[in-house]
Amino acid sequence: MEFEEKTLERQTIFEGQIMTVAKDKVQLPDGQTSYRELVFHNGAVAVLAITPANKIILVKQYRKAIEAVSYEIPAGKLELGEAGHEKEAAARELEEETGYTADLELLYEFYSAIGFSNEHIKLYLAKDLQRVPNPRPQDEDEFLELLELSYEECMDLVKSGKIQDAKTIIALQYFALKMNSY
Amino acid sequence: MEFEEKTLERQTIFEGQIMTVAKDKVQLPDGQTSYRELVFHNGAVAVLAITPANKIILVKQYRKAIEAVSYEIPAGKLELGEAGHEKEAAARELEEETGYTADLELLYEFYSAIGFSNEHIKLYLAKDLQRVPNPRPQDEDEFLELLELSYEECMDLVKSGKIQDAKTIIALQYFALKMNSY
Repeated sequence: MEFEEKTLERQTIFEGQIMTVAKDKVQLPDGQTSYRELVFHNGAVAVLAITPANKIILVKQYRKAIEAVSYEIPAGKLELGEAGHEKEAAARELEEETGYTADLELLYEFYSAIGFSNEHIKLYLAKDLQRVPNPRPQDEDEFLELLELSYEECMDLVKSGKIQDAKTIIALQYFALKMNSY
Repeated sequence: MEFEEKTLERQTIFEGQIMTVAKDKVQLPDGQTSYRELVFHNGAVAVLAITPANKIILVKQYRKAIEAVSYEIPAGKLELGEAGHEKEAAARELEEETGYTADLELLYEFYSAIGFSNEHIKLYLAKDLQRVPNPRPQDEDEFLELLELSYEECMDLVKSGKIQDAKTIIALQYFALKMNSY
């Protein structure tokens, strides 16, 4: 079976700081035409960071897209020139947001919203956290509060709806599968 | 600590079939201003469907956003008027894409790409699948191939990079945590 949708025409609608929006006219496998609305994004990194006390580090922050406060694992967009250097980007985000450094291990990579976007996230595990004496400052437009919570406390936040972020749920389930006895 | 980002001005950039794109000028908690690029989406549903032989149903399809074939659990966007009726929408998608009906149980709900979008996904579990004699037809512009795979076969697809979809990884982790002995 043939699946590919051939691009007949691309209309670029918006070229922003973090995304490019396009509308593609496509030829479907049966020859008919349709349209696809697409959001191109540079990608992001996220870190499941486990403290020596076996707590999970969460970041509390405001998310404009949902007009609400959200609890998530540390994460950040790739900056210019960081494609291919995601592990370093993840280490930078971890340091900026939490003040820790660690060796990082890639757990998963995935597209967050594959139906309309190519945003690609690499999720790392950080154990053996070391405090940085003078950590890099946070981004100017980020206002964060840090929490160190047990797995059970995190799952309470899932049940109460305060954690509703896909990458954070992936990280918590990973913890339950692989780390809960460690 | 104050987190809210107040909207000073909204520029609507694109009103499409599946998304609205906006650029908000916001006032940060410290009084400074910044911009947020946002994608508003009606939301979606997804189904972890387990066959009587304990296989997981996957859909193989082309995803224009990544210009590649993707293996995912059955899913679909909410249609007009389906907000608040996500379980019925999930049952419809399951029937259209797989030809099965089932009682559905909500497992998780989450924002897929919270950094820029409000796309919200409700993920359901479908057990005790029943074949529908005359299932509803698939959407005209969807070309799908169905697979019924064991958990181990699914994890091979994760390792080989053929499964790189966040909601599908959440579903597979859930299966490993809760269903592997069932």
